[in-house]
Amino acid sequence: MSIYSASTTAPVNIATLKYWGKRDKSLNLPTNSSISVTLSQKDLRTLTTAATSETFTEDKLWLNGKLESLESERTKACLADLKKLRKELEDSDASLPKLSTFGLHIVSENNFPTAAGLASSAAGFAALVVAIAKLYKLPQDMSELSKIARKGSGSACRSLFGGYVAWEMGDLTDGEDSKAVEVAPLGHWPGMKAAILVVSDDKKDTPSTSGMQLTVATSDLFQHRIKEVVPARFIEMKKSIAEKDFPLFAELTMKDSNSFHAVCLDSYPPIFYLNDTSKKIIKLVHKLNELEGKIIAAYTFDAGPNAVIYYEEHNESKVLGFLHTVFNKVEGWKGEVKSTDYKFDFDDQLYKGVSKVILTEIGPGPQDTEETLINEQGLPK
Amino acid sequence: MSIYSASTTAPVNIATLKYWGKRDKSLNLPTNSSISVTLSQKDLRTLTTAATSETFTEDKLWLNGKLESLESERTKACLADLKKLRKELEDSDASLPKLSTFGLHIVSENNFPTAAGLASSAAGFAALVVAIAKLYKLPQDMSELSKIARKGSGSACRSLFGGYVAWEMGDLTDGEDSKAVEVAPLGHWPGMKAAILVVSDDKKDTPSTSGMQLTVATSDLFQHRIKEVVPARFIEMKKSIAEKDFPLFAELTMKDSNSFHAVCLDSYPPIFYLNDTSKKIIKLVHKLNELEGKIIAAYTFDAGPNAVIYYEEHNESKVLGFLHTVFNKVEGWKGEVKSTDYKFDFDDQLYKGVSKVILTEIGPGPQDTEETLINEQGLPK
Repeated sequence: MSIYSASTTAPVNIATLKYWGKRDKSLNLPTNSSISVTLSQKDLRTLTTAATSETFTEDKLWLNGKLESLESERTKACLADLKKLRKELEDSDASLPKLSTFGLHIVSENNFPTAAGLASSAAGFAALVVAIAKLYKLPQDMSELSKIARKGSGSACRSLFGGYVAWEMGDLTDGEDSKAVEVAPLGHWPGMKAAILVVSDDKKDTPSTSGMQLTVATSDLFQHRIKEVVPARFIEMKKSIAEKDFPLFAELTMKDSNSFHAVCLDSYPPIFYLNDTSKKIIKLVHKLNELEGKIIAAYTFDAGPNAVIYYEEHNESKVLGFLHTVFNKVEGWKGEVKSTDYKFDFDDQLYKGVSKVILTEIGPGPQDTEETLINEQGLPK
Repeated sequence: MSIYSASTTAPVNIATLKYWGKRDKSLNLPTNSSISVTLSQKDLRTLTTAATSETFTEDKLWLNGKLESLESERTKACLADLKKLRKELEDSDASLPKLSTFGLHIVSENNFPTAAGLASSAAGFAALVVAIAKLYKLPQDMSELSKIARKGSGSACRSLFGGYVAWEMGDLTDGEDSKAVEVAPLGHWPGMKAAILVVSDDKKDTPSTSGMQLTVATSDLFQHRIKEVVPARFIEMKKSIAEKDFPLFAELTMKDSNSFHAVCLDSYPPIFYLNDTSKKIIKLVHKLNELEGKIIAAYTFDAGPNAVIYYEEHNESKVLGFLHTVFNKVEGWKGEVKSTDYKFDFDDQLYKGVSKVILTEIGPGPQDTEETLINEQGLPK
């Protein structure tokens, strides 16, 4: 039995200009362009092995050790697109093995808990698409592949690049121009760091897909956000990255996080992702910037209460020292972080609302790896 | 010694279409029109006595038993306007005593705690203006007087009427067309009731004056709210009152509360008035309406975490029964309220976030009263 296999890793990305709203639900076409920073895979990544063989009778997917249904329309759309591209190759070169007709075995593992609300679906779909593209030896570039990953999970398209990434919303109804592009590579502005505060919450969040559909349908402020606010911010944020202007980048990032949560609140019924702990973290970051006399840290919140705080490496002792003062009892600190001697008032019980600190930084896109999750029988190791 | 005196009561009003944003700070001219329901003075009112005498050498104000400074520009603006109107009367009729040249003693008391964040300044300025207008025997009608109360506190102008009240923003730069008018009298739709849940909070709210200035200056969504969203809603809400259409009135009320808090969140730095308890109350009201299959209750939140829940009298057993299920351990229930047998999940610790329930209803405007707070020496009793 001959088994073909390929593995890749893919990163998590955290948007600084938020994706919220679909203009086409089945193609995951967004109502606005977005921008993200790709995070280091040392801390957060998905590893995926894709394998195929004449003997595999069906497509199968194992996520974190568990066999998953492949009935999801989104996963099926990704697999169909990839098989179609493989078929085109096979049709043009009869010597190629007919992989497009074989079943696929896909095994995927995260190095972080899925439940933490850390954009695991973005890394997951990015890794799935890239691993299969590699298995199929597809010639398409990352932007082309990002259109396939987008159909799995909108924000997954941004995980196909490292560094600073834009998802251009596009105009076409078939989505062929709705893809990820590099705004700037990792090496352009490599000192971007991120501290993630994983916030405990007692309630289940509104899933982002149904949440954004509700916002599109009911928020009176939403159209203004997508037509006026985001397009202007998209240009400004790309400029701030080109110029490595942290205060501008940070201000736009914070404002856009707030704008996104504002249109959630303006939905009917309203959607709340920020809880009292999140709000206190927001106030702390503004307090730090105020004490410092300039903007050295920026918060952003996705569809959940977790805070991602971006800062530049040269301000690490100030930013982490400040956060350590409040959250030193929380697990996850590494290296030698010392609380700073800023004088400020804070809720000394606030740390109880945070279950974990994850210290990470900007990172590259999907990486080839020799590691494989599939054994010689074509099953998960 | 001859002392002239007059007393009045004035009500609290709770906006259903929110006032948030000034186009002129010193005249308290708003960026949008607003609508409110006047609440019963049995539960919430300010009683004010204004007295004057040739022997009073200066203006003095006692609030809830405490001598207050009259240095506030806002109070001074109200007193100056009222004295000017009195002077016009005196100039046209030489037989009138020259009250406009005498000092004023003003004594004011609330029948509810000022600190609870229950729009006490609206009732306070309304009572102050009406008491002095009565003392001075001014011929101006309530809309004219509302322009003076507005200079004290914007929303105070709406407390000069009972029932359903609009504050028309006006166009003029001198504010002469920015005044309160009656949308419908109490008798038009008398069955409107209100349950106020006083929510405990550990943080100090951003004062509304500075909060709204921050929103005007920094929120990217705000201009859309005042130019597009509120003007349309103003017309619709007046129609819902004219037609006594509770589901429409309620939906507009809830949406406008959310829209107001959304532009607060979109301010930079963001302003938060709703806390986790407020958010859970919002979800409960949506749950009640969902269980009932129609909208029978509407929440609204001012610049603080307290919930005001409007409902119609004929739904009282349903609405209060539902709230009683969750908040029966909280003080303030009156009459025979029984928990209903709706089946729903709720946080059984939620009641701990609410310090008091106030059950009230729609009420009339300022009322004449024989009660006086000033003794024969012209001092507080």
